[in-house]
Amino acid sequence: MQTLAFVGLGAMGLPMARNLIRAGFALRGYDARTEALDELRAAGGAACASAGEAAQGTDALVLMVVNADQADTVLFTDGALDALAPGALVLLMSTCPPMAVAAIGARVAERGHRFLDAPVSGGTVGAAAASLSIMVAGAPGDFEAAAPILNAVGEKIFHVGEHFGQGAAVKAVNQLLCGVHLAVAGEALSFARQIGVDPAVALEIVAGSAASSWMLRDRGPRMLQDQPEVTSAVDIFVKDLGIVLAAGSDGKVALPLAAAAHQMFLAVSGQGLGAKDDSQVIRAYEALNLKPGQ
Amino acid sequence: MQTLAFVGLGAMGLPMARNLIRAGFALRGYDARTEALDELRAAGGAACASAGEAAQGTDALVLMVVNADQADTVLFTDGALDALAPGALVLLMSTCPPMAVAAIGARVAERGHRFLDAPVSGGTVGAAAASLSIMVAGAPGDFEAAAPILNAVGEKIFHVGEHFGQGAAVKAVNQLLCGVHLAVAGEALSFARQIGVDPAVALEIVAGSAASSWMLRDRGPRMLQDQPEVTSAVDIFVKDLGIVLAAGSDGKVALPLAAAAHQMFLAVSGQGLGAKDDSQVIRAYEALNLKPGQ
Repeated sequence: MQTLAFVGLGAMGLPMARNLIRAGFALRGYDARTEALDELRAAGGAACASAGEAAQGTDALVLMVVNADQADTVLFTDGALDALAPGALVLLMSTCPPMAVAAIGARVAERGHRFLDAPVSGGTVGAAAASLSIMVAGAPGDFEAAAPILNAVGEKIFHVGEHFGQGAAVKAVNQLLCGVHLAVAGEALSFARQIGVDPAVALEIVAGSAASSWMLRDRGPRMLQDQPEVTSAVDIFVKDLGIVLAAGSDGKVALPLAAAAHQMFLAVSGQGLGAKDDSQVIRAYEALNLKPGQ
Repeated sequence: MQTLAFVGLGAMGLPMARNLIRAGFALRGYDARTEALDELRAAGGAACASAGEAAQGTDALVLMVVNADQADTVLFTDGALDALAPGALVLLMSTCPPMAVAAIGARVAERGHRFLDAPVSGGTVGAAAASLSIMVAGAPGDFEAAAPILNAVGEKIFHVGEHFGQGAAVKAVNQLLCGVHLAVAGEALSFARQIGVDPAVALEIVAGSAASSWMLRDRGPRMLQDQPEVTSAVDIFVKDLGIVLAAGSDGKVALPLAAAAHQMFLAVSGQGLGAKDDSQVIRAYEALNLKPGQ
């Protein structure tokens, strides 16, 4: 498994591909954007003209595309699956709804290939540092076979179950918590200001108490800045909480807090701020509770 | 200020009174419950027959009663304020809505006494260990004068502002975050189970990721137990998120996540489980998403 196909060389995919090349894989990559292919070539990878060409005769294909629809298209329409060597291993590492992942995995298996559902968390920082957390579902033997690939891009690697979609499910649970923690940090700091407390003082106190969360400590300070650095965009949570709610809808599970938090990200995106740092979810609360004269 | 009056010897007040006695104060206490007075006497305090008798001639009065109404009654109806020495210091340490605290503080000041708005966090464990966090608002001189009292019961002591109600406001921000973090932990772990993931596996992963919160790590494991130990009751959050929403209502501030979380605690209390551990907020989600045959 020394030759590897990799499709989807975006903000996450490109640094992951670089780490795989560093780990010794001969990597054949594809992305629709020419610049991404140039960067891959500069990193020592082979730039291919299509997903099918990248997959041609390889034993493993990593998908780090934007969503489940793209994964479906790459595999079944653009010919990547047919191009793979018999019994090859497909790793879907994008964040997708669990039922969509289960359906893709089943179709891959029907054609005699192996499949792992392996979404990641840790963002672009974790992708660059090869310190991603990876939530993997699939057959134990396939999980073991994928170890060299997973270890080259991640640090905390969990085998969460054997059924395709269980990795995506854990990722959805993770994003539900991250998204609600982010939104409620905005609700709390905006509330502090509205009821006459310095939000920086309130933040210092709650960040060190039972009221703390990872998101509050990390994003709270940026919520109080006008133009914070962007480490992850508002629109990422529009998408990810959308996936959480799709997973809830597929399973007929009501998620009242996740749904309310999603609305806040949507509202900020609707203000034209979708590309701003996700800490700016606080602006939904500022707009909602705007007082006359403010 | 060696003699101190203390009214409200409940689950928080009694251990706080004990710590004040240990620190060398001659403490005159009152509570409506005879057992509380017996325990105070056993700890070396003077048990009084009324709030007025406890306050008689003392320079400082600590109130750790259930709510703002009780504080109001003790001070203005039961005669505690009139019984104090001239210019005495009143410390209101209960969790109350900021506007109610501001009104009480203004009336205390009108009568020539000094006032500090000083709610605490840290629960009964922090009360027993004298490790409470205390959010104090009032005049800087009064804050300094209260240091021996505050240091005898707390560890992290913040002067958050000069206006009565600002301490209560920071406490409301704190409880908003705690309550929503607790409810969303229940939403996430219940969601995990509903979509086919072992919630214990999901908890292990998210407790170590960017999805983590203090509440998730502390209460998450108890959410997966049938009859967990009670460290703080569901009804405490029914009350405290009620205070958060009252503060929002007083200031005309919409708090969509806090309001949704409050409903979950209310629902569990309505199931007859108000005295159970607050981790059992997860039962609201289990009831909400109950599937046929479960």
